Amino acid sequence: MHPFDSAIALEQVADGLARGRTQPEWANMVGPFGGVTAATLLRAAEQHPERQGAPLSLTINYLAPLVDGEFDITARPVRTNRTNQHWTLELAQDGEAKTTATAVFGVHRDTWTDTEATPPTAASPEDIPATGFGEFVVWVRNYEMRFVEGAIPGPDDGPSPTSTTTLWVRDGRGRALDHAALAAVSDIFYPRTFLRRGQFVPSGTISMTTYFHASVDELATVGDDYVLGTARANRFSAGYFDQSGQLWSRAGQLLASTHQLVYFKG
Amino acid sequence: MHPFDSAIALEQVADGLARGRTQPEWANMVGPFGGVTAATLLRAAEQHPERQGAPLSLTINYLAPLVDGEFDITARPVRTNRTNQHWTLELAQDGEAKTTATAVFGVHRDTWTDTEATPPTAASPEDIPATGFGEFVVWVRNYEMRFVEGAIPGPDDGPSPTSTTTLWVRDGRGRALDHAALAAVSDIFYPRTFLRRGQFVPSGTISMTTYFHASVDELATVGDDYVLGTARANRFSAGYFDQSGQLWSRAGQLLASTHQLVYFKG
Repeated sequence: MHPFDSAIALEQVADGLARGRTQPEWANMVGPFGGVTAATLLRAAEQHPERQGAPLSLTINYLAPLVDGEFDITARPVRTNRTNQHWTLELAQDGEAKTTATAVFGVHRDTWTDTEATPPTAASPEDIPATGFGEFVVWVRNYEMRFVEGAIPGPDDGPSPTSTTTLWVRDGRGRALDHAALAAVSDIFYPRTFLRRGQFVPSGTISMTTYFHASVDELATVGDDYVLGTARANRFSAGYFDQSGQLWSRAGQLLASTHQLVYFKG
Repeated sequence: MHPFDSAIALEQVADGLARGRTQPEWANMVGPFGGVTAATLLRAAEQHPERQGAPLSLTINYLAPLVDGEFDITARPVRTNRTNQHWTLELAQDGEAKTTATAVFGVHRDTWTDTEATPPTAASPEDIPATGFGEFVVWVRNYEMRFVEGAIPGPDDGPSPTSTTTLWVRDGRGRALDHAALAAVSDIFYPRTFLRRGQFVPSGTISMTTYFHASVDELATVGDDYVLGTARANRFSAGYFDQSGQLWSRAGQLLASTHQLVYFKG
């Protein structure tokens, strides 16, 4: 099984209760990569027998780091409307809540369409070396990353005047993109504090919200191709900053908008 | 009592259970203005005896419209860490869930600070007429609104090529800004579909997330002065669009970043 599919695999143990297990391939500095936890919570709703429609939004709150081992996810479809469905989710270990989430699923309808945002200018991924983040966390080895702008700073880089990072990213083993994978990629950006300060700064995501624009068919068209991700911070103060990002297909479709609030020290 | 304070007033009826009542002054097309519901949920956490710190983030999901009358809010502090606290909230009427939310509160610490986003260019509010939205919904009468760009389209305006609205907004009766009021102002922007289509389009917020940068002291400095709000959509398709906005003080402080996913027809 692909390591991403192992990481988000859930066994249904009771009505609305699913059990999974952390995987060493997804280790972050403390606990697993937050993106894979987001993907796992989304998957819990996706595979629930009452699920209707495709993911429209996901908000995940990181209460405490997961420890290695099993976790339980409760997924509750709080309300099902004609065209959308609202979920609350909670991930716990040994009865202790580690992550909470809400999600909205919905039906895609044929309407007026326009993309007002514009993708960042970027050379082709084939013309940019695959550098990743270096070796400081394990989970990055699952992705192929080619930085257009704002790669993780090296010891001689110093502070950057802007917090923008733009990169091409795809699964390192050619797994095709789906909504769970897109939820994970939403959290692909290393902390903006590293870039602005030109050094490692203790930082961690507190809450992340992703709006999924792409339908199942649109993601199938992307397949295993690169996604162009871009993110920047708005304000850093009092130990927190917020980040806004976008995930684009190579063909110029805005697949998702993603936002997060991050804690930092120093 | 000020109408905003009446609207968000909650009576503690049991441990973690508070009761409020919709107010006719805040009526929207169907149910109350979503911003005042967001403010009421935030207030339920704020006035909970176990609350620690100030609001950092709020995500609210609109499951179904409220009907006129009483509502119950359950507020649960799921986890309290050293510097932050995670909440789940649910608003129900007659036992039926109408709104769910998660919130994070936290301690503000003395850290490196920088605002990377820039406020929109705008004339002084004193130099712009107060126009509001016209008379089509009741709640707008509670605010004084002066549009810098992207006022609600009139019958002869036609479609706009961009979805950006920028406006000065303040409470119409001089109530000072606090986090609850800031949560309400996060939802001040009429649907971006109206502007892009140049006409009324059935639209409704599904989920809204606000990141609060401003501390209690910063909001006290703003007092009853105008806030400069700006918002635009990223992508409209398949019956949904996402909007990203910012709320600035006149002094150029980014008070909050706010994002939402909106349903539309046609």
